[in-house]
Formats: sequence, structure tokens, C-alpha cells
Amino acid sequence: MSVEMEDLVKKSLAELELDARLTTELLVGFVRDEVRKVGVGKIVLGLSGGIDSAIAAFFAALAMGPENVKGICMPYRLSNPQSESDAREVAKACGIKFERVEITPQIDAYFDQYPDAPNLRRGNKMARERMTILYDQSAAEGALVVGTSNKTELLLGYGTLFGDMASAVNPIGDLFKTQVRQISRHVGVPDGVIDKPPSADLWLGQTDEEELGLTYEEVDAVLHYLIDNRYDRQEILEEGFDAEILDGILRRIQRSQYKRRLPLIAKVGPRTIDRDFRYARDWGV
Amino acid sequence: MSVEMEDLVKKSLAELELDARLTTELLVGFVRDEVRKVGVGKIVLGLSGGIDSAIAAFFAALAMGPENVKGICMPYRLSNPQSESDAREVAKACGIKFERVEITPQIDAYFDQYPDAPNLRRGNKMARERMTILYDQSAAEGALVVGTSNKTELLLGYGTLFGDMASAVNPIGDLFKTQVRQISRHVGVPDGVIDKPPSADLWLGQTDEEELGLTYEEVDAVLHYLIDNRYDRQEILEEGFDAEILDGILRRIQRSQYKRRLPLIAKVGPRTIDRDFRYARDWGV
Repeated sequence: MSVEMEDLVKKSLAELELDARLTTELLVGFVRDEVRKVGVGKIVLGLSGGIDSAIAAFFAALAMGPENVKGICMPYRLSNPQSESDAREVAKACGIKFERVEITPQIDAYFDQYPDAPNLRRGNKMARERMTILYDQSAAEGALVVGTSNKTELLLGYGTLFGDMASAVNPIGDLFKTQVRQISRHVGVPDGVIDKPPSADLWLGQTDEEELGLTYEEVDAVLHYLIDNRYDRQEILEEGFDAEILDGILRRIQRSQYKRRLPLIAKVGPRTIDRDFRYARDWGV
Repeated sequence: MSVEMEDLVKKSLAELELDARLTTELLVGFVRDEVRKVGVGKIVLGLSGGIDSAIAAFFAALAMGPENVKGICMPYRLSNPQSESDAREVAKACGIKFERVEITPQIDAYFDQYPDAPNLRRGNKMARERMTILYDQSAAEGALVVGTSNKTELLLGYGTLFGDMASAVNPIGDLFKTQVRQISRHVGVPDGVIDKPPSADLWLGQTDEEELGLTYEEVDAVLHYLIDNRYDRQEILEEGFDAEILDGILRRIQRSQYKRRLPLIAKVGPRTIDRDFRYARDWGV
């Protein structure tokens, strides 16, 4: 990375800094309101041992009281054991209930039929299996599933559609990864969880930043100009960002568009779901 | 049902009748365009043995050629064997490939831990397991997942979120159930599939209409006034519809709203996913 780009990254990240107290208050209030609106008083969420699910767990505990929140850790036999112990530490730190539901039997039963399936297929199946467990547990508990995908990974499409990207309400979907880090320190996420290299933990030694070929600081700096400031490609290049990095990020955003929208329905009738169908104000049933 | 309501149902259903040839052309073209747009040439879809997946299979076969479509039947050990033989008949009738992937091992491995889980939890877990298999098979094949939820069940919320309601493109999401029946005859879905009582096949003898306490004709007649014609509650009652039936349908639509929208993201930044984040016209990457 050029010195010029390093300076730009610093400048962009400085602009992304939030008022941690205010942001926490806003997001805790959001979770509380949305959960109550549905008429339930409880939350379940997946605890991976990573920073995103950790901050979501803290928000959930602050919103509903830790006794009304259950963090579910869903390891596979190849998951890093450190992930589970970090998940336990997070649950302890914010006081929520902890449950462990292993996904190994279900995953292995399926892939026994497809022994040659590559890691990507396995990882996606695991992420979706975890979603099905969270939704099943939420039904059993009368709880809402709180999401744990941050804005950076949602924009890059670095997540599994109908897997970890699925939830009822997501308090951190508008926080970039670097903002998640900032707020995590404020709410008291354990340092070990904040400082370890982010990983989807699908195989040993996997890290997000190695897969992306970029640090989250670099990605967020570009995304901030691109998304928040609405700069186009040319304007960003003129700022001094590296073209290869920028184009890689643009490609990822465009190629993952389908993960951020609803299933596409062919329009036939005069009012179509998610197109022109809306709730009438007078439906006071 | 009163004679007055019977006449109204007939009138409403007559208004719902479509030009079968034109509708088929439109929906086949939609599937073809959307699949090609993604840059793939193949389709996978779940074949339950029911009418909705049957018509979707016919559209898919017409759109991409039957050799590029795979119908996957995913029975559980308690599924009605008739469902699988109907699914096979559908695949044969439209010429697509057929595959059978049993979900029993994965489902039983999970519920062995929760032997008291009620049918609803089991049914939802099965619907979601089937989604994960369709997405895994679509990744293996380089194919798109075509959805099979009709407008009636989407509006009533009579389906599983992130389960059978999940897909990439859905050609029948704007067709009411009675319209699916009409078009099914036109495209050549086997009569036995069209005429059998619709069922989620989660347990023996289950039928949709018994669970809903209404026939699809009644539901569609009300939905047509409510959704397509934008009548409010009072106007529909004045037409002569039964208040209890109407209120039951209104309740179902409202309570299932969350199944028809994206995960709710708390807004923090200036541009939020699925709120004010859109693709700039000049992203010609």
C-alpha cells in the first residue's frame, strides 16, 4: 500500500468513528423496541466466539436483561476449540445463558453422500444448519433471532444467504467492521475476542483478511467513500485509492447484490408482494 | 357459507381468471431472463409432488430446456410415499432430471436431542433442511434455485421463512392458488397432481384447507378484493363477505408480515443496506 493510500485510510477511518455511548444507546433501544413489538420478551443468537456475535450479545443483554437472552454455540467437529471457549467467555462477560448444539451429526450425515464436496459447499451448509437451529430454538423459547452480520460483510457478500445473513432483527448491520471494534471496547467485549484475527472458522487457520486479500481497515476506508459519501469510481481514484483494491471491492458488492434482496417474484397481478403490496393504514385488526 | 358469499366467491374467482397462454409466456420468459442474467444456464428446484412445484418445474423446463433442469425430491421417513411418486411423475411429464435426497438422517440426528418437539418445529426444520440442500445442489451444479411459493401462501404466511419461502427467483409468487390450478392445466401438469388435496405433507392426512379452515377458493376470493382491489375491511363486509372469515385472513396476513421482508437493520450510518443504499448508475465495473 502506498503512503498516499495509508494516509487516506487513516482519514477515512477517523471519519467513521462514532459516539460510542450514543450508538450503544440507539442500538440497544432498537433491539428492545423491535423485540417487544413482536410481542416476545426473549432473544436467541448464535455465538461464534467472534466479535460480531459478541457485540450483538452485549446489545441483547442490555436490551432485554441477560436472563432473557440465550447464546447458542454450534460447533462442527473441525471448528477451532478456541472459538467455543471464546463464545463461553462472551456469554459469561455479558451474563447471558449459554447453550451448545453440535452440528456435526447433521452435516456429516448429508456430506457422507458427497465426499468430494469442496470447503465452500461445506461452509455454506454449516452456516445454514446453524440458522435452522437458531430458528428452531427461537420457536421453542418464544424468542426472536438477533442477527450478527456487520455492514462490511453484508456489502462484500462475505456471508451465507439464508445462513448467517438470516435473522429477524440485526443491530449491527449498519456498523462497519472497524466500527464494531470501536463499540465492542465500549460495551466490554473481552479483549481476546476483539483482538484475534476475524475468521469464519470453516477450516483451521482461515482468516477473513487473508481470504479477502485486504485488511478490514482498507475495506472500510474504501466502503466509506463509496457508500456513505457516494463517490463514484473516478472520484475515489482521484482521492488516491489503489485501483486494483477499489475494483475488487466494487466487484464483490455487485456480485453479491442478490444476497441483499428478497427472492425475485415475477409480476402478474395488480399488487405484488414486496413491489406494490403494502399494509393499508386502516387494517386495525 | 351463505348463498350471498358463494356468489361473491364465484364472481371474484371469475375476475382472477388469466389468459393462460399469455401468462405462461410471460412467466417462462421471466425465468429465462433472470437465470441468464446471473450467468448460469441451469435450474434446480424442489419437487414435493404438489401442484406449485409442478408448475414451477414446467416453467423451468420451458425456459431453459428440460435437460438443464433438475427436480429434487427430499422426502422424510414419515412423508406420504404418494408425494414421491407424484414428484417422479411430474419430472417425467416435463422431461426434467430427477434426484432424490432423503432428509431423514439430518432431521433425526437433530431431533434426537429434542424428542418432545412438536410437529410445527419439526415441519419448519424440514422445510429449512430442504432449502439448504437445494442451495447446496445449486452450488454443485452451477444452477439457480427457482422458488415454488404461490401468492396465496405467501400472503397468509403459510410457509417457512428461510425454508420453502427462500429462493433466487420465483415465477409463481404473484399467482393465487386458484390461478396456479388454472395455468397448471394449460401447461400439462398431470391431473392427479392438480386434483389431489393440497398438503404440506408434514404428517399423514394433513391438508392445507383443513388447517386453514377454508377452501383456497374462499381465501383467494377474499384476497382478490383485499389485495388486488384494495378494499378495506368495511368495504369487503359490505360486499357480503363473512366477517369471521375476513378477519381470520387479515390476521394471518398481518402476523406473517415479517416473513415477507428482509431482516430489519438498525440505521446508524448515512446509507443503510436495503434502506437508502442503491447501486449508482455509473458502476460500470
